[in-house]
Amino acid sequence: MLSSIGESPLYRIANPRSIAFFGASNNISSMGTNLLMSVRSMGFEGTVYPVHPKEKQVQGLKAYRSVRDLADVPDLAVVVLPAPIVNRTLEECGQKGIKHAIVVSGGFKEVGGDGVDLENELVEIARRYGIRVLGPNGLGVANPHQKLNTTFIPHEGPAGFIGLASQSGSFITQMFNYLSGFGLGFSTAFSVGNEADIDLVDCMEYLGVCPHTKVIALYIEGIKRGKEFVKTAKSITPQRPIVALYVGGSETGKRAGFSHTGALAGPDELYNGVFRQAGIIRALSITELFDYCWALGSLPRPKGRRVVIQTHSGGPGAAAADSCGRAGLELPSLSEETVEKLAPFVPHTGSVNNPVDLTFSKHPDDFFFNIPKLLIDEKNADMLLIYFLSAWQVIKRGLEQMGLSEEEVINQYANLIDSQCESIVRLAKKTAKPCVGYTFGSLDDPAIRGLLERGVLVFPGAERAARALGALVRYTTLREKWKEVEV
Amino acid sequence: MLSSIGESPLYRIANPRSIAFFGASNNISSMGTNLLMSVRSMGFEGTVYPVHPKEKQVQGLKAYRSVRDLADVPDLAVVVLPAPIVNRTLEECGQKGIKHAIVVSGGFKEVGGDGVDLENELVEIARRYGIRVLGPNGLGVANPHQKLNTTFIPHEGPAGFIGLASQSGSFITQMFNYLSGFGLGFSTAFSVGNEADIDLVDCMEYLGVCPHTKVIALYIEGIKRGKEFVKTAKSITPQRPIVALYVGGSETGKRAGFSHTGALAGPDELYNGVFRQAGIIRALSITELFDYCWALGSLPRPKGRRVVIQTHSGGPGAAAADSCGRAGLELPSLSEETVEKLAPFVPHTGSVNNPVDLTFSKHPDDFFFNIPKLLIDEKNADMLLIYFLSAWQVIKRGLEQMGLSEEEVINQYANLIDSQCESIVRLAKKTAKPCVGYTFGSLDDPAIRGLLERGVLVFPGAERAARALGALVRYTTLREKWKEVEV
Repeated sequence: MLSSIGESPLYRIANPRSIAFFGASNNISSMGTNLLMSVRSMGFEGTVYPVHPKEKQVQGLKAYRSVRDLADVPDLAVVVLPAPIVNRTLEECGQKGIKHAIVVSGGFKEVGGDGVDLENELVEIARRYGIRVLGPNGLGVANPHQKLNTTFIPHEGPAGFIGLASQSGSFITQMFNYLSGFGLGFSTAFSVGNEADIDLVDCMEYLGVCPHTKVIALYIEGIKRGKEFVKTAKSITPQRPIVALYVGGSETGKRAGFSHTGALAGPDELYNGVFRQAGIIRALSITELFDYCWALGSLPRPKGRRVVIQTHSGGPGAAAADSCGRAGLELPSLSEETVEKLAPFVPHTGSVNNPVDLTFSKHPDDFFFNIPKLLIDEKNADMLLIYFLSAWQVIKRGLEQMGLSEEEVINQYANLIDSQCESIVRLAKKTAKPCVGYTFGSLDDPAIRGLLERGVLVFPGAERAARALGALVRYTTLREKWKEVEV
Repeated sequence: MLSSIGESPLYRIANPRSIAFFGASNNISSMGTNLLMSVRSMGFEGTVYPVHPKEKQVQGLKAYRSVRDLADVPDLAVVVLPAPIVNRTLEECGQKGIKHAIVVSGGFKEVGGDGVDLENELVEIARRYGIRVLGPNGLGVANPHQKLNTTFIPHEGPAGFIGLASQSGSFITQMFNYLSGFGLGFSTAFSVGNEADIDLVDCMEYLGVCPHTKVIALYIEGIKRGKEFVKTAKSITPQRPIVALYVGGSETGKRAGFSHTGALAGPDELYNGVFRQAGIIRALSITELFDYCWALGSLPRPKGRRVVIQTHSGGPGAAAADSCGRAGLELPSLSEETVEKLAPFVPHTGSVNNPVDLTFSKHPDDFFFNIPKLLIDEKNADMLLIYFLSAWQVIKRGLEQMGLSEEEVINQYANLIDSQCESIVRLAKKTAKPCVGYTFGSLDDPAIRGLLERGVLVFPGAERAARALGALVRYTTLREKWKEVEV
């Protein structure tokens, strides 16, 4: 394990002070141009030197005929050129003294034939000049904390705590919006491409000590250095959870991965063994990968697998109960103390079993204040799962009937949501128990958005919440076992 | 099997010409008031008679002291009164000659004790007067084709083709927005409550011949009339698919269901057997229930299980391939003819394996026109799965760089989306093969919304698309078997 990111070959790739950029121009449809636009639109504060054989300016920046013409030696070269001229360019970078490169260009090992030779030559040049290379056939890095994004799509949304190492560039660049929809973002994300030099293991090492990273996500089509992978992951997982999506385990996924990155995938059982040894939690889809990261990166560790569900609708409660059971969680009965305390808040049509079902609440506010407060303190439960319904249309209808103007309706609703969300946040922050929500409503609904923006996890659908809590329990159980071994 | 919905006891419940409404007032926080507001806000065109002991007007409608005071006999009574006065009211309805009732009130069998006696009495009164009752402890019906919605939340969004019979009212009323997000809606949805009289089987019979229904969704906590359930379902499934979510199969779901509707649930294996016998496709969550209905209610039946995937990103392609494999689908190799025809459209960094991965397309339009056209004709494949990325930010950035004004950028983008969506729709409609999409973007993104609004299925996440196609294949295979038996 590294002692800091400064020791990683990725340090100056993810935190460069200056970049020589090859392949960007003023032609807006070229790949290189788009990547340079991404770098610039995020507001990267270092120096960027576009290198172009003809242009004097590229996107308003002074352009250079050759890397030789630069006055200083940039920390990083980003190469987005046609494959046949990549190696020559890399050699010039080496001669200049550049020690780090991202090679975005495709047309290497992944296309077979001559591509394999080209990639071997690339590695040979990198070794000769001591250049550490990320790629080829990758999209580089997104490090929002450094305002750096070398990928295809502009980075919008917040920086976050998920560190990603991915054998697909798309799962960085095409996830920016997806994640920000949940109030999530990357700490740093690496697209490893063909892993000619730097590989997944190097990225894990970096993310294992990255101060912004709370959880590591891996997208894997095939692991190259198996032993090192396990060793590195094992050194990280006791402190920082790792979640992996491995798509090479099915016959269909294996073949797809092979034609994508040339990865040689192994069967599911093999990878399950690897993940188990390494303490890695496995996800089965991209959705699960980031759901699990969300839970593992932001929730306290539960003491056990017992969940109490709060709902005001029987069906969503029962469906959540079923999902919890299928995810390996338990639904304890409430203690007598809690049942007694709940009594004043639950109408006779409701239920103080688990799920606690308020039906038509006596006072709507109780759902956000008194009841979750009691349930969080329930001694028989380790986690709280709350069903959130956006009642916007009903509340709006009611306020309109009271004769309020449109503006007053909107203001009253906004105030209501604020106080409800604040209450849930206060409860969630005060307790050492995981407290999450689920909904069938849109994440853009103000009531749900209010919770997400305040850092409360609200999953679309009970089954996603239950499976994420299940992953949290699995990781926590593993960690307890490791502690015992240490003692 | 019925020969038309007119024969069903639910006919005048879902298609009443007039309603006597008990329990609505001018107090906006009462349940009854809210349900009447739902009925009215949808624009129900029949007559509504609010019955109220004191008010002269309820929500602007003339109110009646007693059902006896009505000049004619309404088709339907909707009762949202406290449990202790429900039976007396039902008796008055019987005396008046009303033959159909929805009883929304809770406090019957589901609360145990006296509630059980109350429910027995309710049934006895209904039998005595020949009243067919939906409920108690249910939300009634939503039939957007008749502008009727007796449930808690206003119905917004389109009428649709999904018929629902649900042991939870929430899964009608709280799904209006969820479904309309996909361009979906209910044909007619029934909340059966405690099933004191009319039950799931009656609803299935109705939906089996309802002319607006293309697929039937069931939310089940426990089945009462097992034999009739199987017999009825068996008579429907050869013509019209049925998808069921059963939550009583896990220990946690079983207990939750019992305290919700008093359902006696059986183990998963038993229900799997029932569903298999009846030709019902099982879903494991609400998300899956409606995903499967979407696919089964709107896609042509595939000839086999072979999928071709079109993508411009390796990772999303490989992840989809893996999900397809796990969902029991196959990824065939493309025929030589198709590979030859694809050649002009695929750059050398791309792949004409399956997934067909264009990487950085030669011409972006090919993705929506020439390539899917070739892939739909692929003789080795039965279905087409397309990855849709919303490239709004990239296109916007490009157009801005060209010096276009904000308005021009928006117009150009709208035109681009229109022509792309239209092309996909033309292809999907011309072919007899299922053609669906998946995305990680928001369903509210204009490029995705344009497809959804035109009736193209775009699933959030590859795994949901793959599992829905898997359900489609399972149903189609079952249907082929039945046909063989008939021959």
